[in-house]
Amino acid sequence: MSTLKNDRLLRALLREPVDMTPVWMMRQAGRYLPEYRATRARAGSFMDLCRNPDLACEVTLQPLERYPLDAAILFSDILTVPDAMGLGLSFNTGEGPQFAKPVRSAADVAALGVPDPEHNLRYVIDAVRVIRRELAGRVPLIGFSGSPWTLATYMVEGGGSKEFSQVKGMMFEQPALMHRLLDILARSVIEYLNAQIAAGAQAVMVFDTWGGTLTPRDYQEFSLRYMTQIVAGVTRHAEGRQVPVILFTKGGGGWIEDMAASGCDALGVDWTVNIGDIRRRVGQQVALQGNMDPCVLYASPQRIRDEVATILGDFGHGTGHVFNLGHGIHPHVDPERVTAFIDAVHQLSPPYHRSRPA
Amino acid sequence: MSTLKNDRLLRALLREPVDMTPVWMMRQAGRYLPEYRATRARAGSFMDLCRNPDLACEVTLQPLERYPLDAAILFSDILTVPDAMGLGLSFNTGEGPQFAKPVRSAADVAALGVPDPEHNLRYVIDAVRVIRRELAGRVPLIGFSGSPWTLATYMVEGGGSKEFSQVKGMMFEQPALMHRLLDILARSVIEYLNAQIAAGAQAVMVFDTWGGTLTPRDYQEFSLRYMTQIVAGVTRHAEGRQVPVILFTKGGGGWIEDMAASGCDALGVDWTVNIGDIRRRVGQQVALQGNMDPCVLYASPQRIRDEVATILGDFGHGTGHVFNLGHGIHPHVDPERVTAFIDAVHQLSPPYHRSRPA
Repeated sequence: MSTLKNDRLLRALLREPVDMTPVWMMRQAGRYLPEYRATRARAGSFMDLCRNPDLACEVTLQPLERYPLDAAILFSDILTVPDAMGLGLSFNTGEGPQFAKPVRSAADVAALGVPDPEHNLRYVIDAVRVIRRELAGRVPLIGFSGSPWTLATYMVEGGGSKEFSQVKGMMFEQPALMHRLLDILARSVIEYLNAQIAAGAQAVMVFDTWGGTLTPRDYQEFSLRYMTQIVAGVTRHAEGRQVPVILFTKGGGGWIEDMAASGCDALGVDWTVNIGDIRRRVGQQVALQGNMDPCVLYASPQRIRDEVATILGDFGHGTGHVFNLGHGIHPHVDPERVTAFIDAVHQLSPPYHRSRPA
Repeated sequence: MSTLKNDRLLRALLREPVDMTPVWMMRQAGRYLPEYRATRARAGSFMDLCRNPDLACEVTLQPLERYPLDAAILFSDILTVPDAMGLGLSFNTGEGPQFAKPVRSAADVAALGVPDPEHNLRYVIDAVRVIRRELAGRVPLIGFSGSPWTLATYMVEGGGSKEFSQVKGMMFEQPALMHRLLDILARSVIEYLNAQIAAGAQAVMVFDTWGGTLTPRDYQEFSLRYMTQIVAGVTRHAEGRQVPVILFTKGGGGWIEDMAASGCDALGVDWTVNIGDIRRRVGQQVALQGNMDPCVLYASPQRIRDEVATILGDFGHGTGHVFNLGHGIHPHVDPERVTAFIDAVHQLSPPYHRSRPA
């Protein structure tokens, strides 16, 4: 595969020196871009877009045409894995994801198998291959998966939820069954991420959207434990380089030390914490990725620039910071504001990477 | 007014010795109770129920008939204040609250005045009076309000929100205007809570539902600052007793020390933190109220009891703990499970309140 021309992201994730802070955005290929909406309209449904490797590649590359981003992230959905397990995923307009066959009983769990990514998730792995080819080494490609706990919430609830009554009911009442489900999911995620890495993903990120709805104890037992299993099972070296693993639990600021001890290389952090405080708490163990409030992108270019400056100052001197939003970019953001954001990171960060005066 | 027969709640909020840990539940008068649903059906709309002091009293007392709770909480809604400011509140089935006239501009903010509670919110203050009379001193009555930031989110968004783009847009882009709005709200909340106290509320709680969506800096400047103003402005003594003030920011575990320094008597804590850790962090400054995951009430009575035991153990020996859920009780909980919950707190907590062996 092509030599990587910009390896700032991989270096920062491994806490190696960089010239400036790398930046990308969660959901950077998405609805805020008119060109994304056009491709999406051509594709048909959201899942039709995910299932077409050429179109998935097209939307993955769109934000890179507009902005000098330091990474591409595979365009896909975290729910491809439960879909490949036979649960029947659909996206109904305005209602979010829905599974035809939710997982509610021991029999439902027993019926689940670990999908073979090259078979049941071939369209994702093919997309990784096409994207790597089309990227031609411009920036690294990030692969991803949902966390076992997050996938389980959708699978047991049968879709999105506010209360999580079904999945927590199972967790509280039938913990052994929940552990069986989470174990199958952890093994599935390992296979899935390893197939993405074999196909060309140069870093991988695990999205734990719903771990932050748990108590500290339940988080340890039902979410972090399985992410730790994933960190241990994922291929950490490919194409002669280390493959960094990033964990992100939304609302996970309270147990960041435990996450840092998982063996991962980097942690995503949302904007409800000060990234400087988090850096002091985790020390040299991991790099940090974050953490601007996505709503700042509704403000003026100057206000965006000020916020970038504040966050760079909070993190402070040295490597180990990947700039990002604290959550996915909102669909109604003006693409011009993103230019201001990306430029601010690149323009304001170099002083933080010069050697300190002796 | 009648002498208070059970003052466990007030004593625990002020960290005075108690015989057992007092317990109540956020939204204890609510949809999980069939008798509530019956009264609600008789009343008409949700706001009709809020606006009728006799019916508001009826639903306030319903959970006390079923369970040996240690407190009553006024049945009302946090959005009565913006409604009294003339924004035109309605609740559409399945869609949550909506304001006919959202606050979007400087002119909109300039048009707002501080409501006179005995005039524009008379129905709430009358409800407090009726409830106090009907309670006849059984347990104390808690009054409440939304926090300025939380009220502002609904007022600027025009209803509920997931992204908070409008209110955060105003905060980032027009901070001076946002501060004017929050100042009017803080003054309104002070008047409102003081009228509730004058009418008989024996403790007051400020609900900051959306402060946890802010960065630590923005939380300080746009939410906590105004709650601190409220703490300073609220009548702290009535009927010969201290009136404790409780602050609750959902998702506020990260800045609990700052909240404790506000001058309030107690802090509500949600279940994403360990209440023992929080107690160590805040020391002797404040009492703590919480923090069972409301979803535990979907589990068996034994599992509920185990969770109560765990939380009591986490808090540890001595006063300063008011047992509660970490959020409002869910509408689909079986009322029988609540019995198990309340009984467990009363049965398992006395050992934590005996003098320690010398």
